[in-house]
Amino acid sequence: MASNIKVGIVGYGNLGRGVEKAIKQNPDIELSAIFSRRHPNEVAAANGVVHISEVENYKGKIDVLILCGGSATDLPEQGPELAALFNTVDSFDTHAKIPDYFEQVNAAAQKGGNVSVISTGWDPGLFSLNRLLAQAVLPEGKEYTFWGKGVSQGHSDAIRRVPGVKNGVQYTIPIESAVERVRNGENPELSTKEKHLRECYVVAEEGADLAKIEREIKEMPNYFSDYLTTVNFISEEELKQNHSAMPHGGNVLRSGRTGENNTQIIEFSLKLDSNPEFTASVLVAYARAVYKLSQSGQTGAKTVFDIPFGLLSPKSPEQLRKELL
Amino acid sequence: MASNIKVGIVGYGNLGRGVEKAIKQNPDIELSAIFSRRHPNEVAAANGVVHISEVENYKGKIDVLILCGGSATDLPEQGPELAALFNTVDSFDTHAKIPDYFEQVNAAAQKGGNVSVISTGWDPGLFSLNRLLAQAVLPEGKEYTFWGKGVSQGHSDAIRRVPGVKNGVQYTIPIESAVERVRNGENPELSTKEKHLRECYVVAEEGADLAKIEREIKEMPNYFSDYLTTVNFISEEELKQNHSAMPHGGNVLRSGRTGENNTQIIEFSLKLDSNPEFTASVLVAYARAVYKLSQSGQTGAKTVFDIPFGLLSPKSPEQLRKELL
Repeated sequence: MASNIKVGIVGYGNLGRGVEKAIKQNPDIELSAIFSRRHPNEVAAANGVVHISEVENYKGKIDVLILCGGSATDLPEQGPELAALFNTVDSFDTHAKIPDYFEQVNAAAQKGGNVSVISTGWDPGLFSLNRLLAQAVLPEGKEYTFWGKGVSQGHSDAIRRVPGVKNGVQYTIPIESAVERVRNGENPELSTKEKHLRECYVVAEEGADLAKIEREIKEMPNYFSDYLTTVNFISEEELKQNHSAMPHGGNVLRSGRTGENNTQIIEFSLKLDSNPEFTASVLVAYARAVYKLSQSGQTGAKTVFDIPFGLLSPKSPEQLRKELL
Repeated sequence: MASNIKVGIVGYGNLGRGVEKAIKQNPDIELSAIFSRRHPNEVAAANGVVHISEVENYKGKIDVLILCGGSATDLPEQGPELAALFNTVDSFDTHAKIPDYFEQVNAAAQKGGNVSVISTGWDPGLFSLNRLLAQAVLPEGKEYTFWGKGVSQGHSDAIRRVPGVKNGVQYTIPIESAVERVRNGENPELSTKEKHLRECYVVAEEGADLAKIEREIKEMPNYFSDYLTTVNFISEEELKQNHSAMPHGGNVLRSGRTGENNTQIIEFSLKLDSNPEFTASVLVAYARAVYKLSQSGQTGAKTVFDIPFGLLSPKSPEQLRKELL
C-alpha cells in the first residue's frame, strides 16, 4: 500500500483549523505540522505548532503545504516563497490579481520542481469550474451567480467602521424569486438590487443615535446603497449566540439555448453550514491532486481548470470507472 | 489562427442531429461528414450523408468522430473499430459494461495512436463528475441522484409491449418533497417509491380493456410495481401533440458533514428541454478536448474523470484564468 500523503498547514485561523478537521476525514492524508507566524506557545493546536521561520527544515518531510493565509497580505508573499520549496495549494481570491499571482507562483514552482494549485476553494474554485463547464457545453446562453445566504466579511467590516457601531454581521441573501426566474428559463436582466438583499445585525454603543447609524449603513456607497438593506439592532449577547456561525453558499446557473429554441438549464449550488470548513475540504482534495501530479513529474502552477477530477479522489481510475461513471 | 477542428458524426438519429446543431454553435468546430448505415439517399441531412463503409477514406481528413449510435448494439462494435482509425467521443451508457468497453476502446485507440473519450453526456458524464467531486470534497456524507422530469425510453418501450397498447410515453418524475428533505440536510433513507413517480400516457387500441391495461402496467415487475404509477389514456393525436418533446434532467446531491456537526450540501442539477440536444452539446465540448489531447501527443481511452475542464473550452488557459476563475 502507498504511504500517506504528508500535509503541512500554513496559518492557523478558521481556514487552517478547517483543514486540520478535513484531514481527519481522509485516511490517505496525514497532518505533519502546522506553521504559524505567531509564537507557538500562543497557539492552541492538538498537534503542536511550529514557527513559520522553521518551515525550510521540513523540506523532504512534507508532500504538500496547504496555505491558509489571507489574499490581501499573506499569500502574495508566502505563495511564491513557499512554492519554491514545497508543493502547495492555496485559496488566493483577489480576482483581478490572479493572472499576476499565477505567473509568480508558476516561476517559483518551476524553479523548485514543485506543483502549486492556486485559487481553489468554492469561489474561486468549484463555482469557476461550473462556469467554465456550462459555458463550454452551452455556448449560447446567459450566466448567473447568486451568493448566500452567507456572512460577507467585507460588508461586516464596513458596518463596524460606522461611528457608534460596536459590532456587526452582514448577511448576503439571494432573492429567491430572481433565482426562480432564471431556473424557469426566463433569461431575466437582473440589476444588482434584484439579485441580493443585505441583512445587517448591529450592536450599537450605548447612547448611540440608532437612526443615524441605520441611515449611514444604508447610504454607504459600493457596499449598501445599491441594495435593499435591512438593519436590525441587537445585543452583543444575541450577536454572539445567533450570528457566530459562518454559513454561506450560492448558485451558479447557466440558461442556454440549443437547436431551434430549447432551453437548457445547468445549476450548481452549495448550502454550507461552515464556509471555512467547506473551503478547507476543497483544499485538502486538491492537495491530493497536487501530490499525484508531482509524483507524475509535473511542475509549475495550476488552477482548478487544469486538474482532472480523477486526481481529487483517493480511488484508482479503474475503481472510479466501475463505481462512479 | 489555428484551423478549425474537423468533426464527423456517426449515426444520424436524434443524437446525431443534436450534434449537427451543436457544432453550429461552436465557431472553432466544423462538420466534415455524417456517416450512416442507411443508404445515403434515405437520410435527409443538409450536409449530405456518407455510407459508413466509406469512413476509412476520411482518415487524415477528420480530427474527431462523434459516435451517436446506441449502447446496446452499435457502440460495442463501432467504438473499438473506429477508435483504431480516428479520435472518438461516445456516450456509451451500459453501466455494468463500462470497464470492459473501456479496455477494448483503449487497446484499439493505443494501437491506432488515437484518443477516445467514452461514456460522456450527462449521466454518465456530468452527473458522474459531480458524484466524484462531491465525494472527494465531502468524504463523510450521503449521495442522492434524482432523475426527471423526463421521458424514459426503456419504460416507454415496456408500456408499448402491453397487449392492447398502441402507443405510450412514460415520464420519470422526482418527488419534490424528497429532494427538499435532502436539501435540508435531513439525510433521509429513501426507498425507490419515495424518490420517483412514474407517469404514463397511453394510447389504447380500439376496444381494448382499459382497466386491464392499467393493471398490467402498474403491476409490471422491475419497471412499475415498486413505484407510484399513474396511467392516463389519451388519443394518438394528443400523444403526438403534447408528448413528442424529449425533456429530461435531474439532480445529484451530496449531503456531507464536516467538523463537529456542520452540514454541507452540494447539488448539481439539469433542467433540459431536449435531452438529445443537451447530450450532443456535451459530446461536442468533449470532442474539443479529445482534439487537444491528441495534439499534445496523448493516446488511449479516457473518461470524463481524466479530462481537465480547461480542455473543454475554446479559450486559452490565460483567458480562462482571467475571465472565469
